[in-house]
This record gives sequence, C-alpha cells and structure tokens, in this order.
Amino acid sequence: MSIPVGSGGTGDGNRHAGDGPDPRRLSLNTATVKLRWNLAQMIEGCARHGIRGIAPWRDKLAELGVAEAARRIRAADLTVTGLCRGGMFPAADAAGRRAAVEDTLRAVDDAASLGAQCLVLVVGGVPAGSKDLAGARAQVRDGIAAVLPHARAAGVPLAIEPLHPMYAADRACVNTLAQALDLCDALDPGGAGGVARTAVDGAPWASASALGVAVDAYHVWWDPMLDAQIERAGPARLHAFHVCDWLVPTRDLLEDRGMMGDGVIDLRGLRRKVEAAGFRGLHECEIFSSRDWWQRDPDEVLGVMKARHAAHC
Amino acid sequence: MSIPVGSGGTGDGNRHAGDGPDPRRLSLNTATVKLRWNLAQMIEGCARHGIRGIAPWRDKLAELGVAEAARRIRAADLTVTGLCRGGMFPAADAAGRRAAVEDTLRAVDDAASLGAQCLVLVVGGVPAGSKDLAGARAQVRDGIAAVLPHARAAGVPLAIEPLHPMYAADRACVNTLAQALDLCDALDPGGAGGVARTAVDGAPWASASALGVAVDAYHVWWDPMLDAQIERAGPARLHAFHVCDWLVPTRDLLEDRGMMGDGVIDLRGLRRKVEAAGFRGLHECEIFSSRDWWQRDPDEVLGVMKARHAAHC
Repeated sequence: MSIPVGSGGTGDGNRHAGDGPDPRRLSLNTATVKLRWNLAQMIEGCARHGIRGIAPWRDKLAELGVAEAARRIRAADLTVTGLCRGGMFPAADAAGRRAAVEDTLRAVDDAASLGAQCLVLVVGGVPAGSKDLAGARAQVRDGIAAVLPHARAAGVPLAIEPLHPMYAADRACVNTLAQALDLCDALDPGGAGGVARTAVDGAPWASASALGVAVDAYHVWWDPMLDAQIERAGPARLHAFHVCDWLVPTRDLLEDRGMMGDGVIDLRGLRRKVEAAGFRGLHECEIFSSRDWWQRDPDEVLGVMKARHAAHC
Repeated sequence: MSIPVGSGGTGDGNRHAGDGPDPRRLSLNTATVKLRWNLAQMIEGCARHGIRGIAPWRDKLAELGVAEAARRIRAADLTVTGLCRGGMFPAADAAGRRAAVEDTLRAVDDAASLGAQCLVLVVGGVPAGSKDLAGARAQVRDGIAAVLPHARAAGVPLAIEPLHPMYAADRACVNTLAQALDLCDALDPGGAGGVARTAVDGAPWASASALGVAVDAYHVWWDPMLDAQIERAGPARLHAFHVCDWLVPTRDLLEDRGMMGDGVIDLRGLRRKVEAAGFRGLHECEIFSSRDWWQRDPDEVLGVMKARHAAHC
C-alpha cells in the first residue's frame, strides 16, 4: 500500500512515491546527539546530512542563545518541528506551580522566536511525597489553562505529549492519547482558529489548533486504543510525531530507547496512521540512549538515523 | 470514611471496623520471598505470622509437588488466592501456541487441586522478531478461548492480569483493565454461572465468573480509566487484588517493586474502590525486589508486610 504524501496530481516534481517515508520529513530532536554536540554543531550536522528539521531542547538553546539559534536555523533552512519543553506543572505548593507556569510562558516566547511548529508539554508527575495522582492531573489541567491564552496570542501551538505510563510518577501524569485529547477538548473546545502551517513538500496541511498533541511512538505504541485516538485527534490536533524504538530487553526506564528498526514498534504502520489522520509534519527522531547512541560519533548517528528512517518509518 | 467489610449488623464479632483493611485479608504471593524460602517454608511462615492466604507460583509448587502442597495448605487453613500462572500464549508458530495452551490446561488442573480462587493469566507479549502487536493480541484471545471450557468444567476461574504497558513487548500485551474486560465480555458474555466463593469473614460474595481479572496495583495505578473499569468489572469479574508499591525512582523494569507505603500508589483508595465494586477476597502482596526485599530474612519481610498492609491498604 502506498500513501502519497504530496499534493497529488501527476507530474508533481515534489511528489514522493512508494511505501517508505518522504526523506524530507526527517527531523532531528537534539536529545538524540545531546552528549557530544552543541546546538550550533547540530544545526551544521543537519545541513551536512540533508536533514530538513530540528527540535531543540531548551538547555541547548540557552547555551547558544535564542536569537543566534533562530538566525542559524533560518540560515540552514530548517523546520523547527517543536521546542522541548514546557510543563512540569504539578508542585507541592502554589509557588512551585506558579514557577512552572512562568517557565512555560518563557518557553512559549522562545518557541515563537524560533518559529517552532509547537511547544511540547511534558506535563509533570506526582509531587514528591504525594500519592494524589488525581490531584496532580488537576494541577496539569490548571497549568495548561494558565499558559494557553499567551500561547494562542503568540501563535505557538501547545502539544501535550502523553508519556509512557512508566513515567506517571515522576515525569508526566498524562499517559494516554485519549487522556491528552480529553484535556484538549476541555481547554480548547472545537480547536478552531489555529495557526497556519505548510507541509515540507508544499502539500495542504490543516491549521494547528492552539492545543493538540505530540504522538511519540515510544510512549503510545502499546495503547489498545491508539488507532481510534489518532483518528480522533485528526489534522488540527496532531502537532508532532516522534519516532524511535522499544528495545527488548529495555535495560533502563529512561535512557535505553532504540534506533528505528531495532525494537518491536511497527513504525511504518504508525506513521501511516498519523498521516492517514491528516498529519503532514516531519518525523522527529528522539532517542535517549546513554549506553549506545549517545556514545557514538554524531555524524554516524545521523547517517544511521537517515537510513533507518527510510527503511522502517 | 469507613467501609465495613463484614456482613453488617451490630454485634457481629467478625466485623472489622475502621479505615484500615481487615488484617485477615492479607495473602502472601510467593514471589515476595522466593529467593530464600521454598513453598513448605512459606506455608509455615504464613501460619507463624497469622497470614491467612497464599498464592503460589508454579515453580515452587512443582518443587514440593501439588498433592503435598495442597495437603499442607489445607492443614494450615490458608486460602489460595490464586495460582501464578498460565498464559504466555503468543508464539512464532502453531506448535509454540499449542504448547502454551497445553501448559495452561495443566495449570488449571493444579489450580483445581489447590482449590485456588483463580488461575492468574499473564498472557504473553509479542513473539521474538515480530512487530505485530495486534496479531499477538489476537493470539491471546484464541489462547484464552482454547483454555476456557476446561477451566469452566474444572471450576477454576481464569483471571486475566493486565500488566503495566512497560511489559507489552515481552510479558503481556494486555495492558489495561478495559482491554482485559473487553476480552472477558467477548469470550464469556454475561459472566454468569460462575464458581461460588466465600469471603474470609463469612460475608456474602458474588460467584466468580469463569473469566475475570486480577487487579494488580502496580500494573494499573496510572490508568486514567481505572475507576470506571473497576466498577465495570464488578463483583463477578474481580477475581484477585494484588498490592505492592511503585518506587520513585524505579531502577529496574522487572525487579524493583516497593513494599506498600514506600511509593506513590494510593493503595487505601484503590482497595476501597475494588471493595466498593464488590470484591471480598484477600489482598495479595506480590513484590519483585531483587535488591531489597528478596535479600532480607523472609520472617522480617512478612512482619513488615503485615504492618504495611494495616497502615497503607
């Protein structure tokens, strides 16, 4: 089966054909090469390898400075598929919760400066010492609600990233796509009036609603409700698509993600589902791998990443 | 708030009062002390500590022999809250799938010999080398369907245990209570005509449907749909309730579970929910802990387990 990602019509020079992904849709999440490169090197690396997108983390962004990073990213003609990250809303006291909101407001500004397609929200877990998961989830809802008006005004779509349930305690208590979309529907009903965006091949792409989701294969691949929820998200709420693989065995809860093809996730099937649901953005490769990929020469990592994207996504 | 677990009425000498759990409802899953004790020692340990229930794993059962184990468990007047485990249905070929079914049929017989309240099914993950999660799930459904008639005839309720999504690849591709209950509804519609059972305090308890679920706090605590699904399960499909705790940080995917009270799970809230939904069985403590609890003197472990059950469940 072939799902064309171009705008259709014969003789379209930009049209991508075949089973595999459009190679122009690969994006580098900077976490993948975070140990050995700074952001300037990552931008140069993407240009050198013909990678068209980048998703910086804020620590790398702060090192280089937002204005300088924006200048270099524009000069390299890279699409910023997302800024990682805002969120971490739950806290033991009101001051902590305010600080998280303020930090996320600053992240919105940074994302706007970069022209990022979204600000990824890793929403935070249960505050230390608490067993109140429902309370933490309510704090997440309040935190997003507090940030949303500024994000909307700044033209920065917020992307709630449901994290794998193994991170519910300490990183994100939003753990399924259904739960993330319930938040979207509650805080941004209808999802209308969003931010215009263009696919890398010039194909039509629905505007981004102010609040949507980041679908990361690693976090959602196991979900029995996944297909229906991707369809439910639809073109306006699908803000980002992240790829890597689930290794067997997985030796560490945080830093043992696999390169595409090395694990059990049917990435091609998943990519087709998000594209069938209207996603026209890039496929962002985000790999936490302290023992393997982080130890390698980043030029090797980018080369393998390109080949695996073509073969498995 | 107090939820009485007795049969009600004033002057009932067996009635348990207060916020905490009825101490007679604690059961030892043999995994908790597996490194240092054999099954005979576990049975003696339960008697010595006034623990009223036990849930053997089959490796320990095989060492002692089923008939001898059954004799000793009866002599100690222990309730067998479950036999661990059948399942592991998906396989790369038909011979592998047949072997899993045959092994589970033998487990049904063992569970019957022990008078176990259920046979726990850990359903299995994705066969090695496969990326076909949906196919594995179909194989699970077929495997359970193949075992169910014999289990029904033997009077052994089957309990599908949804495992935490971090085990989807290699241990169980049934990962939420909703998914497990969908299987129950498909294979055992109505759930009627089940196995009679009596609560430890003599309170009325609904018959067990032939196919139900084991609710393990460790596996399900994060689930946004948990409350509704516990209610959906109801008295007839709630076959087992397992407790331990989710540690922060969790250092190993398999063998770093916490003792009740040491983690983030609101166990008292969860216990109340399953009891409000009609569960009248025991609270089975199952802790995989290669670095901590498995290294301790099992008599110490049982003492702490009793105290933590009273304080946190």
